[in-house]
Amino acid sequence: MNNFEYCCPTHVVFGKGSISKLRELIPQDKKVLMIYGGGSIKKNGVYEQVKSALDGYNLLEFGGIEPNPKYETCMKAVEIVKNEGVDFLLSVGGGSTLDGTKFISLASCYDGDDAYDAIMIREEHPDRVIPIGDVITLPATGSEMNDGAVISRLATDEKLPFHDSRVYPKFSIIDPEVTFSLPVKQTVNGIVDTFVHTMEQYCTYDVNSPLQDDWALGILRTLIKEAPKVLANPCDYDARANIFWCATCGLNYWISLGVVQDWATHMIGHELTAFYGIDHGQSLAIVEPRLLKNQKVAKAQKLAKLAREVFGVNESVDLKAADIAIDKIEEFFNSIGMKTKLSDYGIDAAEAAQKVRDRFRVRGTKIGEKCQIDADVTYDILINC
Amino acid sequence: MNNFEYCCPTHVVFGKGSISKLRELIPQDKKVLMIYGGGSIKKNGVYEQVKSALDGYNLLEFGGIEPNPKYETCMKAVEIVKNEGVDFLLSVGGGSTLDGTKFISLASCYDGDDAYDAIMIREEHPDRVIPIGDVITLPATGSEMNDGAVISRLATDEKLPFHDSRVYPKFSIIDPEVTFSLPVKQTVNGIVDTFVHTMEQYCTYDVNSPLQDDWALGILRTLIKEAPKVLANPCDYDARANIFWCATCGLNYWISLGVVQDWATHMIGHELTAFYGIDHGQSLAIVEPRLLKNQKVAKAQKLAKLAREVFGVNESVDLKAADIAIDKIEEFFNSIGMKTKLSDYGIDAAEAAQKVRDRFRVRGTKIGEKCQIDADVTYDILINC
Repeated sequence: MNNFEYCCPTHVVFGKGSISKLRELIPQDKKVLMIYGGGSIKKNGVYEQVKSALDGYNLLEFGGIEPNPKYETCMKAVEIVKNEGVDFLLSVGGGSTLDGTKFISLASCYDGDDAYDAIMIREEHPDRVIPIGDVITLPATGSEMNDGAVISRLATDEKLPFHDSRVYPKFSIIDPEVTFSLPVKQTVNGIVDTFVHTMEQYCTYDVNSPLQDDWALGILRTLIKEAPKVLANPCDYDARANIFWCATCGLNYWISLGVVQDWATHMIGHELTAFYGIDHGQSLAIVEPRLLKNQKVAKAQKLAKLAREVFGVNESVDLKAADIAIDKIEEFFNSIGMKTKLSDYGIDAAEAAQKVRDRFRVRGTKIGEKCQIDADVTYDILINC
Repeated sequence: MNNFEYCCPTHVVFGKGSISKLRELIPQDKKVLMIYGGGSIKKNGVYEQVKSALDGYNLLEFGGIEPNPKYETCMKAVEIVKNEGVDFLLSVGGGSTLDGTKFISLASCYDGDDAYDAIMIREEHPDRVIPIGDVITLPATGSEMNDGAVISRLATDEKLPFHDSRVYPKFSIIDPEVTFSLPVKQTVNGIVDTFVHTMEQYCTYDVNSPLQDDWALGILRTLIKEAPKVLANPCDYDARANIFWCATCGLNYWISLGVVQDWATHMIGHELTAFYGIDHGQSLAIVEPRLLKNQKVAKAQKLAKLAREVFGVNESVDLKAADIAIDKIEEFFNSIGMKTKLSDYGIDAAEAAQKVRDRFRVRGTKIGEKCQIDADVTYDILINC
């Protein structure tokens, strides 16, 4: 096991009826900006629950954070925070809204010209942040219990991640009932996102960390068992709760402590989203199987273990078991209605492969657990997607 | 899954060489009381590492916290804290030292007559605490990442637990190398303690929490795989690291969120330790198999799952599989050199059963996940131990 450090100060409040606890979690003297997305919270009752819980608070609102949250939109919220002296940010929505809120938290304390260049590229973070809390409504990103966010910039077709320990939410309210009304597409996107998060932290090479490995495989086993239940019955509380807790644990770092990670599928997926606007979950489902095929030899041991301990495959040769595992992962994605080919989304593989290769060449991008995936390897992966 | 809340602010620093990071973790203006146990840290180099890391600090020392830390001893440290104006407590030792430190943290801020009665029995905790950090040297209690402690009082043969969210350590340093020199007996005690902690959180009844169940079984699987390695080679770093991380995760609440727990084995074990002075791990190894046999019907589903998913038992009838699981647990304890009968420790079962029954009757104790284990059931369990 490798050395590690870990500290997540987030107070998690999980379960039905939890939104009413907001009042205990935000000091009453705070000036709160409630940040949300496209307005689904106004249809599913969450908006009303939040307003009711915070009755009497000095509460402003900012709606319109998009999926793959945009720098340009976030900066409009930053204006409000600065002009109104907001001192608490409440994200009410999915991981995109929360990621946007994390960026707003930092950018509101930054006084320079271009907050995207400063925070996302030069990593020059301001010396203070605005505290954050959230009501998370989509099981997917794990943003509710981590210190990361991914922000896109329309002007330059960029989609980049950042981390800052000060943007761990002070609290995260997770009420699985709010996911009963999720569109099927978002439910499926979230399941795939969680699955791939787990893979990125598990599927590298062995550093003798059996507990972390077992726990990662436990998330995959649970997703595979619970996913058909939520699709068959969207109001199955326990299945929704289990999927949500998998999503949170898929990226709260508990499975990645002391192990080697590889976020290549996400990095390539981000480019597909930036260029073609496909959903984050879709981009991952396209890239993951082909990336694993391409990296099969390097990842054979972990893939074979996955084949045996998740899919019950009885195959003693690691490389053969690895192949079966990859096929079964793609079958699982397809079985929940997720398409896994670029052509399914009307995207030309040759064009996509070239575009991403060119960008990675310019940036000198090298990804994978041993930096073994450069621009040309990425081309080889995408041409087969 | 049941509703839950969770917040652990502890900064975990895990891995070889971590003790040198103490300097970054304790503010230099603090007056620190370093609290330790029987002096093993002076033999294994830990004391020197701590002193060296804190060179220049205003550092006092208090040694002599016993296994099953005693109220009477802790109160001597409280005197020092109060008289010297100590404002940071650094526990250097195992879970007993850390548990004692947690009590000292509270008792130092309590001004009444009898801190044991106030904190342990009446649960009247003071309105402030002294902050705590620790270098944990024994994989067992999980105290390094939780808010609980167990304190004994010699005067009354009592051993009771308390919880207070303010005694979560600010940081915990876990360096598996410091466990290379552990006596075999302590290594084995710690493995059994971790195993039983995990059982107490897993082995109740099903509330549809497959991820938590899978993770609990993952700890058991890992313990069973890694235990023989540390016993065969005490300086196997990875095995020591895996055992330590299992111990921490065995009681940092990650496997118990949203599930039903049953701490009956611990509660009965504590009485055996209070009356007969046997080690905590020994008491658990004695009680656990007989308690499970007694509660086999209520716990059949979880025991059968354990039989199949930990021990690979191919038995479709739950009650039969449950029986096999209990036998295999006792075999595992025996296989690592842990004796599991009262008579192995020179204790008369009839006398022990009667003593604990009498005390539970006076207290009206009812334990188990449905309060189904009263004084008489406890007698039935112990008479078979």
